[in-house]
Amino acid sequence: MPGPRGNAVIGQSGGPTAVINRSFIGAIMEARKHAEILELYGARHGVQGMLKNEYVPLFDQPNFVLNQIAKTPAAALGSVRHKPSKDEIRKIFDNFKKMDVRYFFYIGGNDSAETAYIINSFAAHEGYDLRVVHIPKTIDNDLLVTDHCPGFGSAARFVTCAFIGDNEDNRALKGVKINVVMGRNAGYLTASSLMARQYPKDGPHLVYIPELPFDLDKFLEDVDRTYKEHGRALIAVSEGINRQGIYNLKEGEKPEYISQWLLEFMQLKLPEKYMPKSNGTAVELDSHGNVSLSGSGMMGDILALIVKSSLNIKRVRSDTLGYPQRSFPLAISETDAEEAYRVGVDAVIAAVQDNFDEGSIAIKRKDMSGIYGIETAVTPLQSVQKHTKNFPREWISENAVIDERKFGEYVKPLIGTLPVTGRFVRATF
Amino acid sequence: MPGPRGNAVIGQSGGPTAVINRSFIGAIMEARKHAEILELYGARHGVQGMLKNEYVPLFDQPNFVLNQIAKTPAAALGSVRHKPSKDEIRKIFDNFKKMDVRYFFYIGGNDSAETAYIINSFAAHEGYDLRVVHIPKTIDNDLLVTDHCPGFGSAARFVTCAFIGDNEDNRALKGVKINVVMGRNAGYLTASSLMARQYPKDGPHLVYIPELPFDLDKFLEDVDRTYKEHGRALIAVSEGINRQGIYNLKEGEKPEYISQWLLEFMQLKLPEKYMPKSNGTAVELDSHGNVSLSGSGMMGDILALIVKSSLNIKRVRSDTLGYPQRSFPLAISETDAEEAYRVGVDAVIAAVQDNFDEGSIAIKRKDMSGIYGIETAVTPLQSVQKHTKNFPREWISENAVIDERKFGEYVKPLIGTLPVTGRFVRATF
Repeated sequence: MPGPRGNAVIGQSGGPTAVINRSFIGAIMEARKHAEILELYGARHGVQGMLKNEYVPLFDQPNFVLNQIAKTPAAALGSVRHKPSKDEIRKIFDNFKKMDVRYFFYIGGNDSAETAYIINSFAAHEGYDLRVVHIPKTIDNDLLVTDHCPGFGSAARFVTCAFIGDNEDNRALKGVKINVVMGRNAGYLTASSLMARQYPKDGPHLVYIPELPFDLDKFLEDVDRTYKEHGRALIAVSEGINRQGIYNLKEGEKPEYISQWLLEFMQLKLPEKYMPKSNGTAVELDSHGNVSLSGSGMMGDILALIVKSSLNIKRVRSDTLGYPQRSFPLAISETDAEEAYRVGVDAVIAAVQDNFDEGSIAIKRKDMSGIYGIETAVTPLQSVQKHTKNFPREWISENAVIDERKFGEYVKPLIGTLPVTGRFVRATF
Repeated sequence: MPGPRGNAVIGQSGGPTAVINRSFIGAIMEARKHAEILELYGARHGVQGMLKNEYVPLFDQPNFVLNQIAKTPAAALGSVRHKPSKDEIRKIFDNFKKMDVRYFFYIGGNDSAETAYIINSFAAHEGYDLRVVHIPKTIDNDLLVTDHCPGFGSAARFVTCAFIGDNEDNRALKGVKINVVMGRNAGYLTASSLMARQYPKDGPHLVYIPELPFDLDKFLEDVDRTYKEHGRALIAVSEGINRQGIYNLKEGEKPEYISQWLLEFMQLKLPEKYMPKSNGTAVELDSHGNVSLSGSGMMGDILALIVKSSLNIKRVRSDTLGYPQRSFPLAISETDAEEAYRVGVDAVIAAVQDNFDEGSIAIKRKDMSGIYGIETAVTPLQSVQKHTKNFPREWISENAVIDERKFGEYVKPLIGTLPVTGRFVRATF
């Protein structure tokens, strides 16, 4: 069957990236070329807009506007963190039918793939010709099947460049510096910090990813050894470090996050007049009447205090790299930007093919004798939904050290050319 | 008197910037041209190296190395936070005499100018012809006399770009976002976030600088009003916000920092085995046996909790922008880089002039009918030491709002061209 005549909907979901708008604009540009797509509607804030019928018609937006939006970080349509219930997805599908929607493009992670899959199941059940394509996006790089996710390369570029600069800062004013990196359950982004090393003694000297178990005593030994060797230590810590290590989790077992454990030692009573008056407000109280703390924002600070206290080192600092990792406009990787655009284009090309039903666009690396290049393919939605990918075990040595060369071969083309730092000749530092 | 024949010393001091090495390399390049300067020695870690006679001879470093170092963030010679005593400065001067040092260049802030001034006083007292030049550097932009400080433009570029990206992120996933910006006693860097605004509803919507008193209730009113108006609020907060406001401090009065006050409500007992065994270690205990918390790393998180609790808003996040502000290699402003190089060159040119004694290089804005340009001048060391500059009162309206246009005229040429964001036409969001 050729692609049916009708309308199309596109949405953006989950944590934004610096290039998610490239995929979005790529899809618009391509969709305009296909006469069977009558109009492409952009859903405001993903499923939220689809539930409330909040759409922007996209075909008549001027090209200069679309080009500018493509270069803009974060989701121009608005994004959403809500995972819809089956009833809500049913309602979305009913709305689609009323609007004569025949094509649905959803840019997001594995949850978005799942939503897309369920919508498609409703359509299949009713024999309604709806073509559903998931367009991959994450900064964590944790989607299955695809070689890597659009969004990751630019986030990795930010992280690597932050470490390049911070390594120089840490050389100039020596001490221990802990940087907390995004990626709750996948270590790709944290490991990317390794690409900052340009000279033998450069940091990061220690890297902790969530796939491996985190032991505080081992950590302190590592820091102590590094500080004694280099007179300083630059450290990359994933926000998701946990006791067991994601590799070792049993089916259904939850990681015990170090960030959560450390917060147990902290008690915060806000100044009296700002304390929540009762439970049920946005801030909850624990059984001791303290504010329930969550998240990893304070983990770096507490780890820094533990290093100070246990190793008696004076200058210990920490930064949590935060949202610039996913939105800094000057750290966009060209390769990442081009590939993000391409998966948007290829999603539309796939959707209008004869007999297409559903799928997610996956990136494959072409073997071109060491020269980097990609092609895309369609993989069933079920193959990317629900589960996520970890940092590959084969790139980690027995003593829990990441193989910089192996990972570098994979990640360097995605990050792009890096700024080069200088060192004196005939100097010992 | 022409410049004497002899050696020269150069050092870098205080918190590094992304362009402090440009001033350093500019000075080397110029010094090589002057036959009366026999060798230029780089002091390792500023006064620390001068006390221990740890120097790198610089004239025979290859040009390609120097060019690469110029582009490298942070202080290539190493920096130092130590403010030397008068006895130590005496010792440095004695070392200088032994080494036949006739020129001393010190790149740093107002403390470095003071050190330079005292060294020069010793020389003057003994009738020893030493020529001392302070080369300005700060990211806070708080030096007196000079129109602006090298280092500030690049830090402002990082802050502005972080807000450009974060404004898009905050539009995509609506909520309250608080970003804590460097600059303990001067609001220039925090105010630079205003340059991120490109469309009428863009953030930052609220900006708090240390010059003005910070009142938590007023802050909550502001956030509440903004959130009701825009459905979101992007907020720039200086790490140095305080109760009185720097403008209102009496002679000798210390600001009561909000960060310190908020930490009083937080109690942290580290896990037993990591608690400091006694006072006198790197981590001190307060009278309740809790770890003494300091700094502003946690201020953003606690402010976010107070907003959540008091205004009952669900999505409230905070980031502390951290060291990338002073070291991110992709956010270097071209103008800042060129000017930093130039003050290094001009310091050497000044030093070898007939009858030169001492001074600091100051940047002046040329009046060229609206086209930006600078010239430099020498100002006495005493005019820049000890005291610092605040954000100009005349750029703040009566209702404590920064005049974006007036400040923009000043700061935009220093930040450079910014990435442009896109918006749909005929859309209401």
